[in-house]
Amino acid sequence: MIKIGFIGLGHMGAPMAMNLLKAGYGLQVFDLVPEAVAQLAAAGAQAATTAAEAVQDVNVVISMLPSSPHVERLYLGTGAEEDGLLAMIRPDTLIIDCSTIAPESARKVASLARQRGLTMLDAPVSGGVAGAEAGTLTFIVGGASTAVEQARPVLMSMGKNLFHAGDHGAGQVAKICNNMLLAIHMIGTAEALQLGVNNGLDPKVLSEIMLKSSGRNWSLELYNPYPGVMENVPAARHYEGGFMVDLMSKDLGLAQEAALHSKSATPMGTLAKSLYELQSLSGKGSLDFSSIQLLLRKATDEVPSR
Amino acid sequence: MIKIGFIGLGHMGAPMAMNLLKAGYGLQVFDLVPEAVAQLAAAGAQAATTAAEAVQDVNVVISMLPSSPHVERLYLGTGAEEDGLLAMIRPDTLIIDCSTIAPESARKVASLARQRGLTMLDAPVSGGVAGAEAGTLTFIVGGASTAVEQARPVLMSMGKNLFHAGDHGAGQVAKICNNMLLAIHMIGTAEALQLGVNNGLDPKVLSEIMLKSSGRNWSLELYNPYPGVMENVPAARHYEGGFMVDLMSKDLGLAQEAALHSKSATPMGTLAKSLYELQSLSGKGSLDFSSIQLLLRKATDEVPSR
Amino acid sequence: MIKIGFIGLGHMGAPMAMNLLKAGYGLQVFDLVPEAVAQLAAAGAQAATTAAEAVQDVNVVISMLPSSPHVERLYLGTGAEEDGLLAMIRPDTLIIDCSTIAPESARKVASLARQRGLTMLDAPVSGGVAGAEAGTLTFIVGGASTAVEQARPVLMSMGKNLFHAGDHGAGQVAKICNNMLLAIHMIGTAEALQLGVNNGLDPKVLSEIMLKSSGRNWSLELYNPYPGVMENVPAARHYEGGFMVDLMSKDLGLAQEAALHSKSATPMGTLAKSLYELQSLSGKGSLDFSSIQLLLRKATDEVPSR
Amino acid sequence: MIKIGFIGLGHMGAPMAMNLLKAGYGLQVFDLVPEAVAQLAAAGAQAATTAAEAVQDVNVVISMLPSSPHVERLYLGTGAEEDGLLAMIRPDTLIIDCSTIAPESARKVASLARQRGLTMLDAPVSGGVAGAEAGTLTFIVGGASTAVEQARPVLMSMGKNLFHAGDHGAGQVAKICNNMLLAIHMIGTAEALQLGVNNGLDPKVLSEIMLKSSGRNWSLELYNPYPGVMENVPAARHYEGGFMVDLMSKDLGLAQEAALHSKSATPMGTLAKSLYELQSLSGKGSLDFSSIQLLLRKATDEVPSR
Repeated sequence: MIKIGFIGLGHMGAPMAMNLLKAGYGLQVFDLVPEAVAQLAAAGAQAATTAAEAVQDVNVVISMLPSSPHVERLYLGTGAEEDGLLAMIRPDTLIIDCSTIAPESARKVASLARQRGLTMLDAPVSGGVAGAEAGTLTFIVGGASTAVEQARPVLMSMGKNLFHAGDHGAGQVAKICNNMLLAIHMIGTAEALQLGVNNGLDPKVLSEIMLKSSGRNWSLELYNPYPGVMENVPAARHYEGGFMVDLMSKDLGLAQEAALHSKSATPMGTLAKSLYELQSLSGKGSLDFSSIQLLLRKATDEVPSR
Repeated sequence: MIKIGFIGLGHMGAPMAMNLLKAGYGLQVFDLVPEAVAQLAAAGAQAATTAAEAVQDVNVVISMLPSSPHVERLYLGTGAEEDGLLAMIRPDTLIIDCSTIAPESARKVASLARQRGLTMLDAPVSGGVAGAEAGTLTFIVGGASTAVEQARPVLMSMGKNLFHAGDHGAGQVAKICNNMLLAIHMIGTAEALQLGVNNGLDPKVLSEIMLKSSGRNWSLELYNPYPGVMENVPAARHYEGGFMVDLMSKDLGLAQEAALHSKSATPMGTLAKSLYELQSLSGKGSLDFSSIQLLLRKATDEVPSR
Repeated sequence: MIKIGFIGLGHMGAPMAMNLLKAGYGLQVFDLVPEAVAQLAAAGAQAATTAAEAVQDVNVVISMLPSSPHVERLYLGTGAEEDGLLAMIRPDTLIIDCSTIAPESARKVASLARQRGLTMLDAPVSGGVAGAEAGTLTFIVGGASTAVEQARPVLMSMGKNLFHAGDHGAGQVAKICNNMLLAIHMIGTAEALQLGVNNGLDPKVLSEIMLKSSGRNWSLELYNPYPGVMENVPAARHYEGGFMVDLMSKDLGLAQEAALHSKSATPMGTLAKSLYELQSLSGKGSLDFSSIQLLLRKATDEVPSR
Repeated sequence: MIKIGFIGLGHMGAPMAMNLLKAGYGLQVFDLVPEAVAQLAAAGAQAATTAAEAVQDVNVVISMLPSSPHVERLYLGTGAEEDGLLAMIRPDTLIIDCSTIAPESARKVASLARQRGLTMLDAPVSGGVAGAEAGTLTFIVGGASTAVEQARPVLMSMGKNLFHAGDHGAGQVAKICNNMLLAIHMIGTAEALQLGVNNGLDPKVLSEIMLKSSGRNWSLELYNPYPGVMENVPAARHYEGGFMVDLMSKDLGLAQEAALHSKSATPMGTLAKSLYELQSLSGKGSLDFSSIQLLLRKATDEVPSR
């Protein structure tokens, strides 16, 4: 039986690990929060008291951490590499990092892994907590094709789509580009709807017209930010739940860094970052990112909800 | 037989009038350019030497002009109203203005028309010259429902979609909002693709990934701005043909004016306007609007084409 | 004795008229608000019950109104010109409009005035209410040099600087350009100070360093937006008093319109407009424009004051 | 006699080292380019063949390198610290890094230096090559006050101003904030002048008016970007010489990174970065940064020069 070492049992990691258990994989889990480990142990996973213990004698290592420094510290350790996981994982192991981090970090860790004969993939996800629980995540993967095929069955037990974006780091780049574009058309959609409403249009009618015209985009189609237009979206529940402003802001920060390092001009992307930063400063960082609609409305306007 | 007076036979107006002829309507046409009139006359329309002559004894008047001042001058005349068309059109006539103009102008002309017992609609189109020639335009209409139903058969002989956006001016507002959103996701798509390519991704692979993810939008789906990704789009022919940068810039200007008059904040929309303005200043105003991709590339990079 | 007809006795107009009285000019005043007229009458001005009455038998007409439509309605009347002031002012009169309006409006009224043998100047002011009361306003004037010299003594009794920007409308253009630049370096100064503070610097020390370096600008020198750095500025009194966000936003709107009509690209100017629009939507439209600092701070941060 | 080890003899470093020689300091110099070392040796400095040799038995070490990675590699070495300069400099030595780098890097190197009993200062300069040659540079210093006083005479022999911004890294933060503000008011000045010219104003007259009004700023006063307004500025010589677009873009990149790490919103600063990025992509990266004026003009317009 394939044994997996899983590190990082947060909002995303926990349900992902749970789906691996359901799929029948042997699982050794670790997280800095003992309760998170206990919860998975209760479901049948083997609890580890250190990351090192979690990766002992496994075929696959999966990590799901908050940011680049966490991932580098886990695998490379503090300066002297010998206290990093790369020094403890046995050569024939496949490492899959599902965290969303800077492409540079992903490439750095992957090349140091290769130096030790380890195969690594960067496989950031999209689909959020709901997708993690339902096992319907999308994995955007960077690394060698053979490793991607090797990882496919494992990833498919946690999600329903897998894209191979290219070599190491490409998974991170593709996710960053996609989320930057998402932020841009979400804000654009909110601006267009507010402009229409401020000029006497019905947001539902305007949404229908733009959906059938060249304004069409994912935000307008599945995630309408204007309250009262769509049911079962954050805008219908005062922007609670969904994809937090602060998380979108983090991804836009990664996009900005990637742009800086590659001398790319992303005027709309950097403005989107600034607007989400302003939204967060105004105290709305934990609302869904479609709440950017509120930044464009009079603060005194009541927000209708269904 | 229904008789139509058609004024404005430019790139859009001429093919639209041609389709009315094909549909069997009686047509009286006028344009400041005699050749344009002659061309329609050769096809069976009745040539008029003045706008006033073109609207004599017709059931429907259709105008297709470049901007607000042209439309106001045509219908309201110069100051003293008596030299404007409104003073010459008989009461039971339906007036349809297909020009893309400021909502304020559309409302102003419509209300003065109503004062004279005339029914007016603002019906800006989307679909471009190709759509005008193929008779597949989309009409976004503002005005009374009864008038919209009255106009439907006439408009449907020039297009295939009709949306009723609301009262007078609503057609203009809806088109402006849609085109502002289009400009935003077009630039956003160009930025995302360039950022990906600058970080080692294949623009085709990245496009496919974003199309199946939350970055999806009309530009990415039908009008990919990155050379070499899609066939039969302006990007595949050095951005020739299509929807000119200067025309998009004009529509974004209308959006800015609408935002100013309604105290709406459209940060992404106004940045999009600035970027298209820069593109035009750089000498690319007559290229297709997806050429914004060029603004984000090294001027020295060769632009591959199919 | 020179007799002046003064129309528009608001926050700016009233103290300006008062200074004309002090200078010994004969004054006929009108405002839609009777109390405003009564206040000037009490100070020795002759109260008029209509604008027409205020301009009878005067040598100079001065107007100080909120926006373009007000100025056009006053001088041109409603459509038929005969009910506008231009039809009632005697030929040898000098007209000075001190309102801040669109250059197009200024040019339009001036040329219609010329057609009637009247001489007109656009003379928008800077200096605010404080400057109006102290008689230290700056007048930025557009029109013929001879008329400017004729107006100089009158204007100098209300202010201390006069600039001749050029022909009709040039006064408006110059003021709009100056205020757009002011908004840009005010926001830039707020961003630089906040970035410094967020990275551990003392805002006073950073302000001193930038004042002696290439970051120097009027906002940093005389109007520091960061609370606690300077005394006797709006930032020292919770941003009360001074130049309102909504008024700066109005001037930035005029700049945007001027940019649209002249096909000028003003990316920073339009972003400044968007940011002041957002500040206004958040409910801070009546605070001083240096309060843009608050948009860049955590809403939960306490704002220290002296 | 105080002996100084100087590393990095580029456009800035060479003339700075030359001024130290003139001031009578003993100098050991190193650069990767032998010619650069030879030039200083010819002037009386002692040539070193390695950085390690240059810092032997000196009282002060000064470095002037292009970017953060260079500085970290010089002082910390590659991974294992023992091959970095910090391991070779004797304890009682004062280290002054004059490079413009990320505050994080400055703090990191300074704290590792402190661990070894070494005193370090970050002292980025402003004033450009001209200031370096004339010995009129401004030093913006971060570190302990005692060390700043110790460094003062040495720095004053290369410049004429010294500001103590705060603790380690503060010098970098202050310079970054200043240059971000400089970029913002330079672009704002160019926009205001172009808007005025496009509306019929004389750029000289408009510049004078804004200089005496609230639009006043360093760019307008000493570095007017509009051709023909000022003599002896880059705009008067087709934007050659001065402070390169690509260098301003680098500093704006450091500002963006500082903003990202401190969760600061700098909407105008990031737009300025995007605009300079566009200017560089258009092939004008080596022109002076006031050439941003060209981005706002028709490419076909001739640029007048004095």
